[in-house]
Amino acid sequence: MVVAGIMTGTSVDAIDVAFCEITSEGDRHSVSLLSFHSLPFSDDLRGMILKSMAGEASMENLSDLPFALAQEYAQAFRQASASTNVELVSMHGQTLWHHPPVSTWQAGCGSALSALLNLPVVHNFRSADVALGGQGAPLVPIFDHATLTSQVPRIALNIGGMANISILPANASEEDVWACDTGPGNVWIDVASRVTFGKRYDTNGEFARAGRLIPPLLQECKTIPFFSMGLPKSTGRELFSEKEARRLITKYSHPSSPLEDVVTTLTELTAWSIVDHITRLAPASREMIVSGGGSQNSFLLERIEGLVQDASLDLEVQIHPQWDSKEAMAFAYLGWRTIHGLSGNLPRVTGASRPAILGSISRA
Amino acid sequence: MVVAGIMTGTSVDAIDVAFCEITSEGDRHSVSLLSFHSLPFSDDLRGMILKSMAGEASMENLSDLPFALAQEYAQAFRQASASTNVELVSMHGQTLWHHPPVSTWQAGCGSALSALLNLPVVHNFRSADVALGGQGAPLVPIFDHATLTSQVPRIALNIGGMANISILPANASEEDVWACDTGPGNVWIDVASRVTFGKRYDTNGEFARAGRLIPPLLQECKTIPFFSMGLPKSTGRELFSEKEARRLITKYSHPSSPLEDVVTTLTELTAWSIVDHITRLAPASREMIVSGGGSQNSFLLERIEGLVQDASLDLEVQIHPQWDSKEAMAFAYLGWRTIHGLSGNLPRVTGASRPAILGSISRA
Repeated sequence: MVVAGIMTGTSVDAIDVAFCEITSEGDRHSVSLLSFHSLPFSDDLRGMILKSMAGEASMENLSDLPFALAQEYAQAFRQASASTNVELVSMHGQTLWHHPPVSTWQAGCGSALSALLNLPVVHNFRSADVALGGQGAPLVPIFDHATLTSQVPRIALNIGGMANISILPANASEEDVWACDTGPGNVWIDVASRVTFGKRYDTNGEFARAGRLIPPLLQECKTIPFFSMGLPKSTGRELFSEKEARRLITKYSHPSSPLEDVVTTLTELTAWSIVDHITRLAPASREMIVSGGGSQNSFLLERIEGLVQDASLDLEVQIHPQWDSKEAMAFAYLGWRTIHGLSGNLPRVTGASRPAILGSISRA
Repeated sequence: MVVAGIMTGTSVDAIDVAFCEITSEGDRHSVSLLSFHSLPFSDDLRGMILKSMAGEASMENLSDLPFALAQEYAQAFRQASASTNVELVSMHGQTLWHHPPVSTWQAGCGSALSALLNLPVVHNFRSADVALGGQGAPLVPIFDHATLTSQVPRIALNIGGMANISILPANASEEDVWACDTGPGNVWIDVASRVTFGKRYDTNGEFARAGRLIPPLLQECKTIPFFSMGLPKSTGRELFSEKEARRLITKYSHPSSPLEDVVTTLTELTAWSIVDHITRLAPASREMIVSGGGSQNSFLLERIEGLVQDASLDLEVQIHPQWDSKEAMAFAYLGWRTIHGLSGNLPRVTGASRPAILGSISRA
């Protein structure tokens, strides 16, 4: 079955579309990428999303947004799919708010997208898990399990806006998988790049590499209670907000110090929080496969490897061959599971009371 | 198939649950009511809904609301369904905003409700039609057609927060049906009752019956462009808002005049707008079957009958035997259609470019 996964992350940087061929043989599922496309948001829509996240949108804006998203998703799909015979669309939607275990909010009207594309659409993947007391996240672990389980114990690390890990023991069954968010991925590095240099992100970690640590800033960040919380846990821009990052930057920036230093320090925070979670939760892992935009920040990767050595972990760090398309592929797979009546959450990972068939199916 | 229809209207007065047995013989569908329950909203939830409608809710409130609605719908369902073997739940959700043909917003998380009840849930009925350029409303006409078509030309009038009519020619096919919103139903009568007497509505039309018309108020109201617009059209609280009603009441109330007069005048507006639409769109109709809370306002009914006589229409007015449960039954039927792959909108009624299978199916 050919499934298109459409993903837009908390960075609101692009509409990712992954066309996948998904096949099954008994319990073994295989997901192969046919093509991947990353298309820009229109400035209008990106502005409307950021305004909504900031709580500055009117009810009319908030009513219109899911339809505007469906329109742009449909447009991205059409631009990307010229020659592909797609049977199912799987739409993550744009997270506007994440407040587990009370609620979660992925905007993007699946029924509208289905009407526009004349294809079945699966969407709203996180709500059932939250309604069952779960975090509604992370949901990628079941995909990591299907595609990355190996004879050696592995970790799948994704560094998007937030960072998360899936812990895959050797030859793991679904029930053996652990996973959680580890804290900020690129989100605070991006804020620091914007505040200091007016850039949307730190290309290849160049700013961070040129600066020096600000120890008291790092120290205050490390005391954020999320980092020491037990599992299950997930987080988002509600906690690791632009506002909080700006507060910290203002508090610890010295006029005579190089601007790079805050980028360096918030990069170190991301690396530290990832490695700290691994040290505590999966010290026996042998391979770590890194995906997401953050996998392209070579300074961040170096710092992760440095901290791995400092912690005396025997862990080989690799870049995922589909580092940019993995999340969109994961949601293609989750939609495929839903259509086949298979649950998509891992209760011990999310904290939900039971496995659930995730999402809603529209077939307008 | 036993289907539960869950409906909450723009008046936010109750959670209506209709358990229906739906059967089909070829193209003929039959919907019989097994039981009907109207349960109160909790004060907290009602407050949160009204705050949201007024644009005063935070993003966290708006994220939480669909889950809180799912919780109360689940609770209402459980209180109501003790002995019924329900196979499908059909949830209209709470309209927060209606902005056709750009967007529409029915809050209430179907995926969460499905997880809580462990039953399939169809929901979000209006979006596909809006995405196809339609008004997303009215959707009850296909149910009126299935249940009220007769050998005489009929009108089905529903007086809820807003009022709408379905025009059913004798022995009509689905394609023969016309329908539209006619303007306010109870919404402005309720505002007038609240502003003047602190009552949530005008019981049996007692205030209205005791007052006299304020001609300039009626005259200004009649100039609202919605009334003279052609079809298709639908409306909501965005246009017939509490704020606008209060403005009109303040403008035309005289301190020495009885408070009842504004209730009388806004009741007359409702009656006038209904009969004016019938006179223009369906003067040949012979029977009118009235449902919704407004059907219990005997003064409003008298005024409708009076204006029908003034317009020399040969129209017999009857109360629908399921006047209170009709809308919930209609959505039970629409959910049943969706599960069976049948479209639910009538394109010439809503203005959509094509028939669509409405809503999304969750099966958590």
